[in-house]
Amino acid sequence: MQRGEILKIRLTHGSGGKKTEELIRRVFSKYISSDELSRMDDGGIFDKKYVVSTDSFVVNPVFFPGGNIGDLSICGTVNDLASMGAQPLYFTLGFIIEEGFDSSALEEILSSMKKRIEEVGISVISADTKVVEARDPERPGLFINSTGIGRIYREIPGLDAVESGDVVIVTGAVGEHGFAVLSHRLNLTSTIKSDTRPLWSLIKNLLDRIPVKFMRDPTRGGLAQTLNEIVDGRNYGIDIEEGKVPISEEVRGLSELLGIDPLEVANEGCMIVVVSENHAPKVINILRQHPYGQNASIIGRVTDEHPGVVVVRNPYGARRILYKPIGEKLPRIC
Amino acid sequence: MQRGEILKIRLTHGSGGKKTEELIRRVFSKYISSDELSRMDDGGIFDKKYVVSTDSFVVNPVFFPGGNIGDLSICGTVNDLASMGAQPLYFTLGFIIEEGFDSSALEEILSSMKKRIEEVGISVISADTKVVEARDPERPGLFINSTGIGRIYREIPGLDAVESGDVVIVTGAVGEHGFAVLSHRLNLTSTIKSDTRPLWSLIKNLLDRIPVKFMRDPTRGGLAQTLNEIVDGRNYGIDIEEGKVPISEEVRGLSELLGIDPLEVANEGCMIVVVSENHAPKVINILRQHPYGQNASIIGRVTDEHPGVVVVRNPYGARRILYKPIGEKLPRIC
Repeated sequence: MQRGEILKIRLTHGSGGKKTEELIRRVFSKYISSDELSRMDDGGIFDKKYVVSTDSFVVNPVFFPGGNIGDLSICGTVNDLASMGAQPLYFTLGFIIEEGFDSSALEEILSSMKKRIEEVGISVISADTKVVEARDPERPGLFINSTGIGRIYREIPGLDAVESGDVVIVTGAVGEHGFAVLSHRLNLTSTIKSDTRPLWSLIKNLLDRIPVKFMRDPTRGGLAQTLNEIVDGRNYGIDIEEGKVPISEEVRGLSELLGIDPLEVANEGCMIVVVSENHAPKVINILRQHPYGQNASIIGRVTDEHPGVVVVRNPYGARRILYKPIGEKLPRIC
Repeated sequence: MQRGEILKIRLTHGSGGKKTEELIRRVFSKYISSDELSRMDDGGIFDKKYVVSTDSFVVNPVFFPGGNIGDLSICGTVNDLASMGAQPLYFTLGFIIEEGFDSSALEEILSSMKKRIEEVGISVISADTKVVEARDPERPGLFINSTGIGRIYREIPGLDAVESGDVVIVTGAVGEHGFAVLSHRLNLTSTIKSDTRPLWSLIKNLLDRIPVKFMRDPTRGGLAQTLNEIVDGRNYGIDIEEGKVPISEEVRGLSELLGIDPLEVANEGCMIVVVSENHAPKVINILRQHPYGQNASIIGRVTDEHPGVVVVRNPYGARRILYKPIGEKLPRIC
């Protein structure tokens, strides 16, 4: 896409990968800009002590193994705030419901939201409901915007503080959300469940004891997207040991069957954490004490050998470059 | 609708009128509740000095005479914050774009958002973009969630402070937005333009000099909805002088042609203000000094003669009860 060229927006522009970045850089940022937005963090800081983060959830289907769009809309925004070192406190919810949607399905969605709201201890203080025509009257859906305000609990220094020798940790098994939605959409028999869960209590435990350098939850575009965001334009790269990345047997099997790299698939309940090497064993210890951190693993290291590049080494020693996904393998994943 | 009964959500449930209230009371409030939500204000207060307000904008068509969905999404949330006595400061934006939408149309929308953002002096500090299938591939649209955070500039005492004898003021001519969208949708030749505009600077002038008791912007459901929200369950009612309500010739003509009461139609650039009688002349004076308050008028009074009821007296002395609209005359008006 050239500047000034008219393009039609495609599903891939909503993938969270390279195409989304292009749309934001070429179109949105010409008009909507701020210091906070230009940092490309998962939230913006205001009045030095608050973080606000917004996300619209459009996952299709709205119910999937291990969760639903409501559950996801709370957890997703909680995790964005947590990644910024902020305790989630006040939420707003905007519902856009397609005409014909069942009130019983809506109640099931709201009920699972209530559980997560109570688990995290947040308060919903503003809400809005709109109704629009259904795109498929046989299967009306809904969209949920959730915007969360958190108070900074610990300041996270961010990517400027990351340096060669630092350790890259993931708090849980990857690929679960993406493959759960995909297998459900394809009517495959599978036991894979989405990892949708709110990570604040896990992250709080960590922040209480460890000076974390950087965190981000690898949602759209998976590990491949987030790891590349860490090294983009930096004087460091990342080396990943593929054999250390926690991946369930089921996800591995399905990924081989479908030819989809689990490192490129969305997660909704794990966090990438970067710490200095000396803290790494303690981080793993703290994370594994929490039910949401059982599979926490050191998956790689920051290196100055290949700046701006993420390299994955498989268990047989072969190395490949891990690129940012162009578009998400599955549209409307979250 | 009975408790426990399964219903299909209809467009009228998104009207902002009685049906929306029913959906919120019977379904949403069973699961999502808080002190702030139960006040049914246009925003929630947190940490005693901030207000947050969320709104999703789904207006169809996205371009209409006098504005577009982007313009509207900024002004609508600015006005909700202003009605709570809060200075709009930090915004988040969530875009849900239908596949096939033109980037040039998107740029036009973003450009008008930028103008309003600069006019009000707010900062967009978090944003998100998703892409979904179009409901009508020939005419893809988009939805915008805007969530605004403001700092309380003056505390507004609210409905508990309202009493018999108080004066009801509207800051501008009513019905413009609703009839602009409607005439555009029906391909009628009309000069009516939406009143979409951000009211913070107008309201700030007022708050600097007058102790305002209550404010609300009469959007979905128009004056009829908002005036009834003021008297609902209260020991006072409101008398409106229909001849004093500022309505343009064009709106009056179209309302007679179509048989739609302009008091039931959405506005996007005027505010209902309740003050004690002694302040009323000064309020009108202050409002009319601002370009957005040229048509400000005293339209009625709070009375203890008919608690909970809004009565409209026409210029010939005939009286009628003004009810809450059941559903909006036009779906997807904002």
